[in-house]
Amino acid sequence: MELSTIYQPVQEDLVKVEDRLRLVSQVDFPHLAELLDYSLRSSGKRIRPILTLLSGKFYDYNLSQLLPMATAVEILHTATLVHDDAIDNSVVRRGRPTVFKLWGAEKAVLLGDYLFAEAGALTATTHNLRVIKLFAQTLKTISSGELNQAFNAFNLNQSHSQYLQRVASKTAALFTMATESGSVLSQAPEESIQILIEYGYNLGIAFQIVDYILDFIGTEEELGKPTGSDLTQGTITLPSLLLLEHYPEDNPVKRLVSNRDDPENIKQAIELVRNSSIIQECYQLADEYVARARHNLKLLPENDSRQSLGQLADYIITRRR
Amino acid sequence: MELSTIYQPVQEDLVKVEDRLRLVSQVDFPHLAELLDYSLRSSGKRIRPILTLLSGKFYDYNLSQLLPMATAVEILHTATLVHDDAIDNSVVRRGRPTVFKLWGAEKAVLLGDYLFAEAGALTATTHNLRVIKLFAQTLKTISSGELNQAFNAFNLNQSHSQYLQRVASKTAALFTMATESGSVLSQAPEESIQILIEYGYNLGIAFQIVDYILDFIGTEEELGKPTGSDLTQGTITLPSLLLLEHYPEDNPVKRLVSNRDDPENIKQAIELVRNSSIIQECYQLADEYVARARHNLKLLPENDSRQSLGQLADYIITRRR
Repeated sequence: MELSTIYQPVQEDLVKVEDRLRLVSQVDFPHLAELLDYSLRSSGKRIRPILTLLSGKFYDYNLSQLLPMATAVEILHTATLVHDDAIDNSVVRRGRPTVFKLWGAEKAVLLGDYLFAEAGALTATTHNLRVIKLFAQTLKTISSGELNQAFNAFNLNQSHSQYLQRVASKTAALFTMATESGSVLSQAPEESIQILIEYGYNLGIAFQIVDYILDFIGTEEELGKPTGSDLTQGTITLPSLLLLEHYPEDNPVKRLVSNRDDPENIKQAIELVRNSSIIQECYQLADEYVARARHNLKLLPENDSRQSLGQLADYIITRRR
Repeated sequence: MELSTIYQPVQEDLVKVEDRLRLVSQVDFPHLAELLDYSLRSSGKRIRPILTLLSGKFYDYNLSQLLPMATAVEILHTATLVHDDAIDNSVVRRGRPTVFKLWGAEKAVLLGDYLFAEAGALTATTHNLRVIKLFAQTLKTISSGELNQAFNAFNLNQSHSQYLQRVASKTAALFTMATESGSVLSQAPEESIQILIEYGYNLGIAFQIVDYILDFIGTEEELGKPTGSDLTQGTITLPSLLLLEHYPEDNPVKRLVSNRDDPENIKQAIELVRNSSIIQECYQLADEYVARARHNLKLLPENDSRQSLGQLADYIITRRR
């Protein structure tokens, strides 16, 4: 199913979010305006703001608060990507040169800082203390999760539970912020808020697992960045962990750790993962999380948003980019 | 006058701020705990949290809000320093190796992000929407000011007004955030809040001008970092601007732009600034801002905080580090 079909119940309001994202780059300082325009220009799937809007549609669909919040969620996501690229020296994302590549690390770091602040300022316009605190907590979770990942680069002794915890802190934190803020701002009862938090969490884990799979099986064209980027950064993701488990004696991931500059090891790891049951096992795990997310939805009132959230869960598994 | 004497009216409460700063590093992720402890450990002058506390002492000295706010102001300041050092490749600050030097750019960027979030979370605990918005706006001002500086590195065609604007966005933004938040949280009348904002602005400009002077006349031991660091980064500060004006034909700052790697030009620039009237002219300008700050104070109720804020203005001119 196409994203545009899934997004249908909030399509018009997503256009308003895009308008607000464009407004962010209307600043007097031309260099900053250019950086903001480049980094926020539509190219992503906008899943996170969609989650905020859809989650806000079960009770009081209060656009005066939901629109700035959905915009803030997308800006926060963008800020983390801009910093990630600067940290990882990534030169291409979504098929375009990164801010890091075009302007350098210094400007990328400062742009990311500005974007964090802009997202915080937009969140504050909701005047809702719960989502304001959620925003700060989410950024704490994301940055400590990224630090955890940085300290564990090339560390092969990671358990599955550590691994999932790390996944949780990265993607799931943003997904749950999106669903929690949407439901809170629409005056949902606490029970529904908790359900949408769980849905966001399960969806986020599934989404990230698929991201890690695609990094092994996607083409550079589909991914908008080189295949095997995670492993190149030393990030041991689920496919690599399974590869270590399946071939404990000798394998290209192990060899990569002792010889980090040999691209042959990355190539062999990709080959080995593709030609084993690993991809299937990863999809199985992602499927489990999608099933949980779908189960969460059953406990919510039935409406077109609920239907879209269910379709989104399926889309996340089948997507190729 | 010693800072400890100036701080006397809020000395006990500054100890509580230090306690809260230590609490921030009580996290169960040991690597993060170490980074937080290292970056927040007392070594700075703590002028910004002092400004919050003193500004909060004219009306309702409400510590339950002022303490987290003062802590947030210091953490925000620390976050910007951690990012600055990563961006500038600075290896030493306040006589200690920087986070960048000890842990590398990746960890420094992520630690800074975490600190921004922590400062935001603490600000949110005040439940005061005005200071929450002020926090986000301040981070926007600081990061766009730093971007402005980055885009103007080695740019000799800067007017004084551009220069002062940049100064304002860096240091003065944090100083005014400190004084505004303190006065707002103590339920000061709007007139007093505006006076304390102006005081913070004038004090911040004076402080930054003196910082730029010290970068030319201080010893490495006093500064806790090499003399001439600004110029080495390509940052054209007031002394360099005046040097360009005094010696328009040929001078070491001009030569530095065409030959950035020659340390001889930095050395000569320092010599020339020291042996001219430039330092005196800079101090004159700083004095003017201090006089304005002192004038602002006259409009506030007389108490021991007002006296301390006046002494702080004088201290800022005479300080050597």
